[in-house]
Amino acid sequence: MSAPAAIEMSDDERAIRHLVAQWMDSTIAGDNAAVLRMVDDDVVFLAPGQPAMRGKAAFAALQSSLSAMRIDGTADVQDVRVSGDLAYVWNNLRVAITPRTGGARLTREGPALSVLVKREGRWMILRDANMLTVVDH
Amino acid sequence: MSAPAAIEMSDDERAIRHLVAQWMDSTIAGDNAAVLRMVDDDVVFLAPGQPAMRGKAAFAALQSSLSAMRIDGTADVQDVRVSGDLAYVWNNLRVAITPRTGGARLTREGPALSVLVKREGRWMILRDANMLTVVDH
Repeated sequence: MSAPAAIEMSDDERAIRHLVAQWMDSTIAGDNAAVLRMVDDDVVFLAPGQPAMRGKAAFAALQSSLSAMRIDGTADVQDVRVSGDLAYVWNNLRVAITPRTGGARLTREGPALSVLVKREGRWMILRDANMLTVVDH
Repeated sequence: MSAPAAIEMSDDERAIRHLVAQWMDSTIAGDNAAVLRMVDDDVVFLAPGQPAMRGKAAFAALQSSLSAMRIDGTADVQDVRVSGDLAYVWNNLRVAITPRTGGARLTREGPALSVLVKREGRWMILRDANMLTVVDH
């Protein structure tokens, strides 16, 4: 007997919400390998005033450059929707970055809209729109 | 005999690319009614440093406030993906706004990531991440 569609949908949503929490936890922990397992090989990261960052390798290079920083943050899921192997999640994010050697903390917050794809049963980030801006507090 | 899935996918992609072109054409023509037919009632527009704009009514109010402006622009589709009744499109946009009474033209460009939903056979904008920034040229 197969599970009802509504339950399957709910499992996918739960998996995506878990991925968002895991993403933040792994980022804070500096566990780059764990973060990289959550992005598709053909991921594209988009942000205002910057060229598109294409592919997992480019993202991995950025991730390793952040090892000199202490990162803290929160992700507040606003909305998730799934259809088959495609989904999106809208988050409100807050991320604080502090140089490990000391120095001023930079805090950015704002929305992010991510598109996810399911590959072999696992959800991964495929497209990401980062709309965070620097805040004073 | 039902059509192959690959052909159906292609029809949806074509419909979404057409919607992007229509969106720009209708915006340039100042045809707000046509633009509003392309957004879902529960649409949310996201942009850096701004609160989320929720719902078709809020968007309609913004649209009508733009009637004093002449708008020109281009939309360059980078990427479309569809699964069932959900899709996304990544565009590179360029939008120039000029007061109809005269005055300086403001040009913004950058990426936008939109999530679309299919309702009664028609694709509509459900979530939109606007990452355009002001440019000099």
